[in-house]
Amino acid sequence: MADFLTLIPPEEARELLLSKVISSPVVKAEVDLLHALGRVSAEDILAPHPLPNFPRSTVDGFAVHARDTYGAAESMPAYLKLVGEVPMGDRPPLGIHSGEAMVIHTGGMVPEGADAIVMLEYVQQSRGEEIEVNRAAAIGENVILVGEDVVEGQVILAKGVKIRPAEIGGLAAFGISRLRVAKKVRVGLISSGDEVVPSAGDIRLGQVRDINSYSLAALIELSGGEPILYGIVPDHIDDLRSVTARALHECDVVLITAGSSASTRDMTAQVIDQIGVPGVLVHGINTKPGKPTILGVCDGKAVLGLPGNPVSALVNGMLFVVPLIEKLLGLPSGKPQATVPATLTVNLASQAGREDWQPVKLVAGKEGWLAAPIFGKSNLIFTLASADGLICIPPDSTGIGAGEQVDVYLI
Amino acid sequence: MADFLTLIPPEEARELLLSKVISSPVVKAEVDLLHALGRVSAEDILAPHPLPNFPRSTVDGFAVHARDTYGAAESMPAYLKLVGEVPMGDRPPLGIHSGEAMVIHTGGMVPEGADAIVMLEYVQQSRGEEIEVNRAAAIGENVILVGEDVVEGQVILAKGVKIRPAEIGGLAAFGISRLRVAKKVRVGLISSGDEVVPSAGDIRLGQVRDINSYSLAALIELSGGEPILYGIVPDHIDDLRSVTARALHECDVVLITAGSSASTRDMTAQVIDQIGVPGVLVHGINTKPGKPTILGVCDGKAVLGLPGNPVSALVNGMLFVVPLIEKLLGLPSGKPQATVPATLTVNLASQAGREDWQPVKLVAGKEGWLAAPIFGKSNLIFTLASADGLICIPPDSTGIGAGEQVDVYLI
Repeated sequence: MADFLTLIPPEEARELLLSKVISSPVVKAEVDLLHALGRVSAEDILAPHPLPNFPRSTVDGFAVHARDTYGAAESMPAYLKLVGEVPMGDRPPLGIHSGEAMVIHTGGMVPEGADAIVMLEYVQQSRGEEIEVNRAAAIGENVILVGEDVVEGQVILAKGVKIRPAEIGGLAAFGISRLRVAKKVRVGLISSGDEVVPSAGDIRLGQVRDINSYSLAALIELSGGEPILYGIVPDHIDDLRSVTARALHECDVVLITAGSSASTRDMTAQVIDQIGVPGVLVHGINTKPGKPTILGVCDGKAVLGLPGNPVSALVNGMLFVVPLIEKLLGLPSGKPQATVPATLTVNLASQAGREDWQPVKLVAGKEGWLAAPIFGKSNLIFTLASADGLICIPPDSTGIGAGEQVDVYLI
Repeated sequence: MADFLTLIPPEEARELLLSKVISSPVVKAEVDLLHALGRVSAEDILAPHPLPNFPRSTVDGFAVHARDTYGAAESMPAYLKLVGEVPMGDRPPLGIHSGEAMVIHTGGMVPEGADAIVMLEYVQQSRGEEIEVNRAAAIGENVILVGEDVVEGQVILAKGVKIRPAEIGGLAAFGISRLRVAKKVRVGLISSGDEVVPSAGDIRLGQVRDINSYSLAALIELSGGEPILYGIVPDHIDDLRSVTARALHECDVVLITAGSSASTRDMTAQVIDQIGVPGVLVHGINTKPGKPTILGVCDGKAVLGLPGNPVSALVNGMLFVVPLIEKLLGLPSGKPQATVPATLTVNLASQAGREDWQPVKLVAGKEGWLAAPIFGKSNLIFTLASADGLICIPPDSTGIGAGEQVDVYLI
């Protein structure tokens, strides 16, 4: 039986793991702009020209010399000569001189000489080619200047950014249709345990279906990884060692979800120590669920032993595998995490020194959300499937009282 | 020029739109479990059997009759006869009688007759076939009962649930490898404006590349929709009408991003009124950005005119298109929204009665996150691309002061 005499706090365990993993330069993959959503940029992209690259009007109105309108008011309009109209999507036919104005639409190119746009509603078209301006315009009013959005050479997409709709739009604005992103992190998944059988197959009494390969594969996909399934390995160290060594060769990260018995857990630690250096870094983390989690690095690559219990496996996947994938993709650490503020419905006790992750259901209350803990052993996957999120009871706390405010991390 | 005499609050506009859209029963698509991530379940799935379907041990130890251990202590152990070992992944070879014990591993099937498991560390193996139990066990101790996770017939995945890793794990536990999910909502995207050209093509001075088709396509994909691109339609009402009618026939939702000039915006409203009833529901919403947004329903399907300005188009896509897609997928409304609490760095003024969505950058401060507003016209897509999220200044507020707490919605 593994003894956990040296339980390490999860934060320290995670930092140790991340510091020992060798993150070589990210491998790049070229993708179409429309397939870049959710990928991580692999290099800085610079603006090939200023944006906009011509001065644009932000309103429907008249392009003028601002100076010509100074002092204009309804009682004393400025009279200007109308010299034409700016066609949409094209250059103005000519520039304007002092005393002249030109019809312009929103998004139209400001003609040379003009330095302001007077809005339609402040203008009266008096006779034929003359307009009356009823309000003074300031220089630059209603004009977007060349480079006001982006100047030439500015970084429009920095390396290590997760691409959202706004970034897609920004690249489209420059006609960039292909870009280099970080290749997905290949995460090998090995299940072990003599009682575990493939999820979809036949089953006999005493056996359990493989849950972790599926739930962890989904978590890996969500975080920018590519799960590679190595199936279920029986409880023999030679088998586990050879499959793990193959996965280590083929993948960037390897996860072994141990069978739940102590002997298979020990086997995982032995294998990690045998297939590369330094081997096991951490065996036993002061967290609930997930105490028996094993963190190792073999020749620069992370090899983790996650508990076989499905709730422990998934929660510890969130705590250790997701940050690992993010690091290997080139994402910066310490990004803001969104949570739902809620009021705890019952007292929750926790052991001092231990970090607890408690599944909760969010229920609409009179004044915001209520967080109702879902109690269940970590063998019970539906404890998690029926939860909206997790709350963290930090190591320096012995619990949280009913009525206290908590931050719920949606899962 | 459109006049916005009857600007409607965004909440009211959204409710009106959602109430007028006819949501027929969701169209179902069958997918493999490993491809179900992020999809929405289209029907209730019931547990075909209890989970677990046999009583399991949660520890390594000995299966016993609890009663045989009552009063046991180190000074006065209970002596039991060892009658065998439970093989992993199989039935126990036999049941146990009073006075007997059987070796069992974590996850092993509890033999008939046993009602508790004594942990390894409380047992001494004395001579051959006898063990000494040093601690009393309660009935049910260290045992997961049949159906303790899920009872037979219980809903294991309700209709209208967005499938996460935990749900994938829950279905894997039952060997469910295929399931019915809501078909992705088809959202037709039409760009209009004589100045707009395809993003990737050649461009001349005065033209701008199509941003909205790309950024909105990405937003639609993120929310469970399938974007269908209809390209750029020139500013002629007949063209816009025929393309919109075709999109309405082929899609569940149609979005027209109007050219930025007032005339093309008016054209959008006319087309929505012409191709189906009731047509335009809302023309002008009291929000910034996005005032000129048009919400319409044509013969039960939503047809929206979004502003051509890329920031307005994307922010209004978040406010109106995402909830629409979620409704059509069968997701319940009013789900909790996670935010990042932050301290505003500068004063932000807002017009009373108007709902403002202000892009902000999150910067790590001494005591949590600081929200630094990014100011820029709504024509400037990089205002949004450089933001981490948005903060909302509600209609009943005239602004938020520097130093106040705000909730940042990550984008």
